[in-house]
Amino acid sequence: MSKPLILICNDDGIDAKGIHTLARALDGLGEIVVIAPEREQSAAGHSITMRDPVRAFSYTFELPSGPIKAFAVTGTPADCIKLGCNRLLPRFPDLVVSGINSGPNTAVNILYSGTVSAASEACILGIPAVAVSLCSWEDDADFEQSGHWARRIAERVLQNGLPDGILLNVNVPSGPHVNGVEVTRQASARWEEEFSPRTDPFGRTYYWLTGRFVNLDDTGDNDLAAIDRGYVSVTPLRLDLTAYDHVQTLRGWDW
Amino acid sequence: MSKPLILICNDDGIDAKGIHTLARALDGLGEIVVIAPEREQSAAGHSITMRDPVRAFSYTFELPSGPIKAFAVTGTPADCIKLGCNRLLPRFPDLVVSGINSGPNTAVNILYSGTVSAASEACILGIPAVAVSLCSWEDDADFEQSGHWARRIAERVLQNGLPDGILLNVNVPSGPHVNGVEVTRQASARWEEEFSPRTDPFGRTYYWLTGRFVNLDDTGDNDLAAIDRGYVSVTPLRLDLTAYDHVQTLRGWDW
Repeated sequence: MSKPLILICNDDGIDAKGIHTLARALDGLGEIVVIAPEREQSAAGHSITMRDPVRAFSYTFELPSGPIKAFAVTGTPADCIKLGCNRLLPRFPDLVVSGINSGPNTAVNILYSGTVSAASEACILGIPAVAVSLCSWEDDADFEQSGHWARRIAERVLQNGLPDGILLNVNVPSGPHVNGVEVTRQASARWEEEFSPRTDPFGRTYYWLTGRFVNLDDTGDNDLAAIDRGYVSVTPLRLDLTAYDHVQTLRGWDW
Repeated sequence: MSKPLILICNDDGIDAKGIHTLARALDGLGEIVVIAPEREQSAAGHSITMRDPVRAFSYTFELPSGPIKAFAVTGTPADCIKLGCNRLLPRFPDLVVSGINSGPNTAVNILYSGTVSAASEACILGIPAVAVSLCSWEDDADFEQSGHWARRIAERVLQNGLPDGILLNVNVPSGPHVNGVEVTRQASARWEEEFSPRTDPFGRTYYWLTGRFVNLDDTGDNDLAAIDRGYVSVTPLRLDLTAYDHVQTLRGWDW
């Protein structure tokens, strides 16, 4: 087999520390190309750019083995994957790795995450994909350990493949010691939002989103619990939202 | 029971035809408040506004029974629900109805849909929610029939409730005759993207997203198939993306 083509993306933008750590960590695993948003796109969810055109600017990433191609895209993480697969890459990649995100993408945050949406978009296109997040928002967070786990998991996916329609969502604890990997499910949780009001110089009100994360899940096999115990959480995700167990009930309604 | 509080949202913006049809269609069903994006937010996915503040401007919608309160928000559909529930409404609503979207939100498009994301956000907050889309992109599309079905389905949800964590995604065919309701699942499909390149006056390339929708699903009980047969498609959605049937396989990997 020829060297696998690996596409790296993120949502923190092409200059973020996490994506540079990720590219270095995967160095040697295949032919690597980085295609990432020009600017931070956190909480972009699975948005795509339809009303404006997108542009791509050439970059270079310096890896230990030498320079690799990179592109900064004026769009969302999902745009990066679409444009990469359709215009910028010589062929569909064998693997997409998105991250390393600054901050966890667990529980309900999976839905808001641009990091996960890049991997989801790849999954929709039939490409094995992994989203990797570090459970720390600190500016001086150490991404090296999460880079190690990103490589290890990328190797496993290249070896074993993933079934069509399934991607992996990986969250690495921030502590210095990691106990290993746990395969988990998405925890049930929500944000209790607060909007902090301010007044502009013209007397008009505006609001900043803030909030408190509430874990509603007391079972042991969820992503939050695994991280709390010091394990890397690996959650297989599927993009079919159908609530199959509720279909029959609804068929009984008087429509 | 006092009159239910019904929050109406959309992603096409507060001036779109579909949301005005929806408000008129639900007139009399409860106390109705409209909170919608100031501008079109199609394909916003489940994005939220974290790096900028949001503002809300007072509007009025004229319904047959009289004027009702409305707010235009400088944010995404998910922002509208969050800000509405936390700041603009007197209490949590009893029902959220999002739409009526111009164009279907079926299959993989559910993931990109701002219309669905408003209902999803309500679902996360524990509020029964319905997303309604009309399967027509025509400027002169007739939303009246989809308004009729939106009301009927809203009535059913108010009567029967919905289990915690489940929302309904409704797509109404565009034809003049509708055969009834079918409870469906999300079809398997994808977009085969093309990016149409252009050159700006300064000689630089930019790309417009375009594409061809490919239905990969030949089963009969999916949303696309129901609409093709002239039925309103009602799909129960759950926001837990865990691929439960793949957890055991992954636990067998050498991590």
